[in-house]
Amino acid sequence: VDNNQLAHRLSALVGDAHVLTDPALKASYETDFTGRFTGRSRLVVRPADTEQVAGIVGLCRAEGIPLVPQGGNTGLVGASVPTGTEIVLSLGRLTEIGPVDEAARQVTVGAGVPLAEVQRRVRPYGLAFGVDLAARDSATIGGMIATNAGGERVVRYGTTRANVAGLEAVLPDGSVLSRLTGLPKDNTGYDLTGLLVGSEGTLAVLTRARLRLVPIQPRRVTALLALPSIEQAITALTAVRALESLELAEFFLPEGLSLVMAQTGLPAPFGAEYPVYLLVECAGRQDPTEELAEVLDDADILDMAVAVQASDRHRLAAYRDRHTESINAEGIPLKLDVTLPLDEVAGFVRDLPDLLPKRVRPILFGHLAEGNLHVNLLDVASSDEDAVSETVLRRVAAAGGSISAEHGIGRAKAHYLSLSRSPAEIAAMRAVKAALDPTGILSPGTLLP
Amino acid sequence: VDNNQLAHRLSALVGDAHVLTDPALKASYETDFTGRFTGRSRLVVRPADTEQVAGIVGLCRAEGIPLVPQGGNTGLVGASVPTGTEIVLSLGRLTEIGPVDEAARQVTVGAGVPLAEVQRRVRPYGLAFGVDLAARDSATIGGMIATNAGGERVVRYGTTRANVAGLEAVLPDGSVLSRLTGLPKDNTGYDLTGLLVGSEGTLAVLTRARLRLVPIQPRRVTALLALPSIEQAITALTAVRALESLELAEFFLPEGLSLVMAQTGLPAPFGAEYPVYLLVECAGRQDPTEELAEVLDDADILDMAVAVQASDRHRLAAYRDRHTESINAEGIPLKLDVTLPLDEVAGFVRDLPDLLPKRVRPILFGHLAEGNLHVNLLDVASSDEDAVSETVLRRVAAAGGSISAEHGIGRAKAHYLSLSRSPAEIAAMRAVKAALDPTGILSPGTLLP
Repeated sequence: VDNNQLAHRLSALVGDAHVLTDPALKASYETDFTGRFTGRSRLVVRPADTEQVAGIVGLCRAEGIPLVPQGGNTGLVGASVPTGTEIVLSLGRLTEIGPVDEAARQVTVGAGVPLAEVQRRVRPYGLAFGVDLAARDSATIGGMIATNAGGERVVRYGTTRANVAGLEAVLPDGSVLSRLTGLPKDNTGYDLTGLLVGSEGTLAVLTRARLRLVPIQPRRVTALLALPSIEQAITALTAVRALESLELAEFFLPEGLSLVMAQTGLPAPFGAEYPVYLLVECAGRQDPTEELAEVLDDADILDMAVAVQASDRHRLAAYRDRHTESINAEGIPLKLDVTLPLDEVAGFVRDLPDLLPKRVRPILFGHLAEGNLHVNLLDVASSDEDAVSETVLRRVAAAGGSISAEHGIGRAKAHYLSLSRSPAEIAAMRAVKAALDPTGILSPGTLLP
Repeated sequence: VDNNQLAHRLSALVGDAHVLTDPALKASYETDFTGRFTGRSRLVVRPADTEQVAGIVGLCRAEGIPLVPQGGNTGLVGASVPTGTEIVLSLGRLTEIGPVDEAARQVTVGAGVPLAEVQRRVRPYGLAFGVDLAARDSATIGGMIATNAGGERVVRYGTTRANVAGLEAVLPDGSVLSRLTGLPKDNTGYDLTGLLVGSEGTLAVLTRARLRLVPIQPRRVTALLALPSIEQAITALTAVRALESLELAEFFLPEGLSLVMAQTGLPAPFGAEYPVYLLVECAGRQDPTEELAEVLDDADILDMAVAVQASDRHRLAAYRDRHTESINAEGIPLKLDVTLPLDEVAGFVRDLPDLLPKRVRPILFGHLAEGNLHVNLLDVASSDEDAVSETVLRRVAAAGGSISAEHGIGRAKAHYLSLSRSPAEIAAMRAVKAALDPTGILSPGTLLP
């Protein structure tokens, strides 16, 4: 079918107003929010409900038209951006939010609901969605599930996969898979919900989700620790992880701290510069300050600042939180997002400068409990980007790490997938993809190279 | 190949001593521990390591010989028992346990390691595997993963799936899939580990697992609450779930309590009989007694017994723990294991007697936080068993429940799968099965009807 026919048939499904063919209207759907990934689409279609999604997918399947599902378009690896031949299937109108089930601590929401809206809706019940991240106003639940989003609180609540109790999704054959009862124990066959989480739009179009919620913890303490080495930071972290109140454990280094102080005007947190900084936050029904002090008693801590009042806690957290903007103010960094086994983190940080061209400035920080390092490389010549990326990712893979901790593979890293996944694994993934999407209409070119 | 040729070729892979063809030696592998499921096998092969497993699977694939992986043979739905044409692949010799990684709180163990052995090995580090169950001396880690085992502590730690950080498995094509780094954040493609958990031996032969461990909580309180109704028990449960220290929440009813007292000679827990009993246990670094009392302040509790000393706690827990043996002493019950949405539990319990032949005595107990009811039916005529099972399971399914909470589908419930799973889901599961095991050599007849 040509574009006019296609638009006509889709309009019959969703209404004229929700099929966008005008390049000006399509534009915001064709470029991600970083501006790094951009491409053309045949058109953009904006269904209102699951039935319309099923109709669109069924039509695409029958006509062999590829499609790219899109949520808030805040992904970082280009998985929601078309490449020219696809239609964009925007889930932004699937914004229904069901009643909060306080006993089960769950809520069912449409794929297009932004994270912040979920948090607003469940807060009056003393509940929160356990995954939270900076893009919360734009990032949609569907997109977070498609990428198995992480964030700072993974140490306590796990990634998105651990916080999804069920899904409704349209499979590539147009059938609707619905598991929204959210039963916490349900051993009736393969975990299709878990399989779809993190599948980056390549196996199904997510339409609704049954989310697990966690109780909001009222009493909170934040501590910034100065430590002599990454090894000692990991020892301190291991001690703190005995506390179930641990909610975040972020590390950064003097180079990053200097940038933050220079850019933000924040005063130095301590009277001296130290090799490693670890920011921890604990939260519970009782004030966790005492138990935090107790478990840190034997740790080799050079200096420490502790805050309980919200304003003081935010002041300490700012040294970590303002890394990204401070780095960006220095130039456009090459960003990599990797996980290392904990006992490989120190060696990686030590070796990294030797892997890079001389003038490159590495700024590292991240979620230490998961070995998740955000590697920001300043002053990489654009002609060096691919070589530098590959060198660093190969080093990560050689240490048993993951080339993508929380951003996913998308289009950006598909050609690096074999660094983290063996031929047997990639073959199994291809088999699963072919089983559910035999004609390959869903997000071609994403995830699998 | 005939049996002699097959035994010969397998002996070349694993050694003569580990290929069992003598009916007397095979017998214990051909009947499950309850004696309910039994069948013949061509032979039993006992490999020592992953390489041998891969050799066996490769041979079976090439020759079209079906095989049934088997762990401790403690499953309850017949998934590890052969039906005549298969060989039994026993993983009992894969008993290696790696070093405990205290920083990551993980350990790698062979599929054949019994659960109790894992607990023994990690206890000196102040750690435990979060899933625990009564069959711990026989149940193997591989079997627990294959069935996504649950148990009493799911309310705190989740099912087995949530406690597995990675797997090594032999796929039906003989290739080895290995994800044992246990990285907590690793968004590099489909979650094959999660897919294999709960796949009941139908997608791969599990050989090793990377297990997540949890810190042992030293201070513990157990409380037995008497409540006016299941609705009020759920309200009390909702209050208690605000505590992260909540470790178990089990309910039982007067009929079960009477049986337990009659069989065990335990004294009545309270001066009167009450409609519903709820046993809760909290555990933390600090004594959780006070916070438990605090959250229960508004609950409609008719009577309550609280215990902190181990012997007192065990005395309270016995009223729940001794249900199974007390029921069995009355006769062989028809056992069903179902999950209901929490707001459907009370209605189900109320309606159940009307669904049953007059003389049948239903004894219900279970894991209330998950809506997981163990339905034990005494005095069911054997000619009525199928009809009674189907009637009860249909009622569960009509309420949005699951026909198998923690036992799995196996052979026993394969023909009921469609009660809990839609045609679209079953089609998707079949597609995944066909993708990974196109010739169907792994556990034919299990899970998928």
